[in-house]
Amino acid sequence: MSDLVRTEKDVRRAVAAARGQGKSVGLVPTMGALHEGHLAVFERARQECGYVVASIFVNPTQFPPGTDFETYPRDLESDVKRAQSAGVDLVFSPSVEEMYPPGDRTFVEVTGPLVECLCGPHRPGHFRGLTTVCARLFNIVQPDRAYFGEKDYQQLLIIKQMVRDLHFPLEIIRVATVREPDGLAMSSRNRYLDPREREAARVLSQALFEARDRFTSGERNADSLVDAATRAVAAEPLVSLQYLELRDAATLEELHEVGRPALLAVAAFVGEARLIDNVLLVPR
Amino acid sequence: MSDLVRTEKDVRRAVAAARGQGKSVGLVPTMGALHEGHLAVFERARQECGYVVASIFVNPTQFPPGTDFETYPRDLESDVKRAQSAGVDLVFSPSVEEMYPPGDRTFVEVTGPLVECLCGPHRPGHFRGLTTVCARLFNIVQPDRAYFGEKDYQQLLIIKQMVRDLHFPLEIIRVATVREPDGLAMSSRNRYLDPREREAARVLSQALFEARDRFTSGERNADSLVDAATRAVAAEPLVSLQYLELRDAATLEELHEVGRPALLAVAAFVGEARLIDNVLLVPR
Repeated sequence: MSDLVRTEKDVRRAVAAARGQGKSVGLVPTMGALHEGHLAVFERARQECGYVVASIFVNPTQFPPGTDFETYPRDLESDVKRAQSAGVDLVFSPSVEEMYPPGDRTFVEVTGPLVECLCGPHRPGHFRGLTTVCARLFNIVQPDRAYFGEKDYQQLLIIKQMVRDLHFPLEIIRVATVREPDGLAMSSRNRYLDPREREAARVLSQALFEARDRFTSGERNADSLVDAATRAVAAEPLVSLQYLELRDAATLEELHEVGRPALLAVAAFVGEARLIDNVLLVPR
Repeated sequence: MSDLVRTEKDVRRAVAAARGQGKSVGLVPTMGALHEGHLAVFERARQECGYVVASIFVNPTQFPPGTDFETYPRDLESDVKRAQSAGVDLVFSPSVEEMYPPGDRTFVEVTGPLVECLCGPHRPGHFRGLTTVCARLFNIVQPDRAYFGEKDYQQLLIIKQMVRDLHFPLEIIRVATVREPDGLAMSSRNRYLDPREREAARVLSQALFEARDRFTSGERNADSLVDAATRAVAAEPLVSLQYLELRDAATLEELHEVGRPALLAVAAFVGEARLIDNVLLVPR
């Protein structure tokens, strides 16, 4: 049965008690509206850690102006039950004031290629808000490991870079994307889709999978893989493509040939929902 | 007898061993060239912590372009002996590559009034470099308390703000400035002074002390206190004043009357040496 706490102080007390029992501590940062993807991450954390903390915090600083901070789905009661059933030991759901006390003036920023491509230019301030809140969560929970889903692949690389550069004493663990039966990546924002949009959203994962099939069959040319996938998405009138790009899976630098592990990533609006997805293309 | 270590890994091992013995951990970040001011900080840390770590690292990111990074005094052997005699348990003297691994891309920044006045405009990038390196040191050493000298008063406030905002699990402790017999604040940069400059540098603390005397005698007007102190410094031809200002001691906002605790702070070049000093004016 998960405890629900709201303050840094209560988290520290609970984590200290778990440490006192010799348990290792895992953190799964979330924004709530928990789905099967989150549950898979909880499960992985349970396998590796004696004590699992899930944070549920819709972080205002990672929503660029004019995006869906206000309307982002919030259902704490249901989330706590789901976290409980998934074996989470502690749910930390702080207020905005708890995470950003009045007079707050400090941010953490990763610069360079990792933040300058894909979602970076489309979501100004997003990654700064992300690193700033994760640094705070890491300092509050002080986990041995923190878990992030592969769907937000760029986020994962940026957090790893921050942890490495700032010497945070923890390990970042990556957990595979969970998908609906038709391939759509699980996302809290899928709740925004009406039935026609939900149907149309399938094209994103389908285009990625088709590209991966062509890669598996021997295609290595980036333009060819990207162009075909782009045409597939563009053929769906309810989907408005933001980007579809192939990049080095470690550095996010541009790739012309898939000679090393590559990320094929897509972002698109389907109605009001901004959805992202990706597949990895790994040469043998 | 202090151990000298060079790597994050060795620090973590030593600190974990001390923790295993139930000791609390204090960190004193320094740039070396240790003087009596540092020794007073070590002494305070020893009183409060079972295990004292001193870091010695001339941090390149806090030196604005064209300042004294290259010429800053470095004498590790002598510093380690001094730290030993002062009862420091561990000296951590990392290379630049250890603190800033190749490909480093992350910084920590405090924004707002605390960084926009006094040394801020005169030393572009200095405080960002400072907070970035302190965040790293805090994550490597994970101390219960970190100790800073009051001479660098603005630095102290900025670090406190960062610790509070990023929820670092530690306390910042402030230690009073140590002075030469004639009043000059101890500083590693005093080594830059030739005998005539050393003599002239006395005017800085003297001007501050005279202002404090006038405050104690009842003067509360900021302009009056600042103007008299400024004239005293300006009368010394070997001293080139950078700023002399009275500000709120908690927020560094401008003050017209000393109705609450105030900081009277000065920065000046004496030859090649940029020196700073301050006194606190605290109404009863």
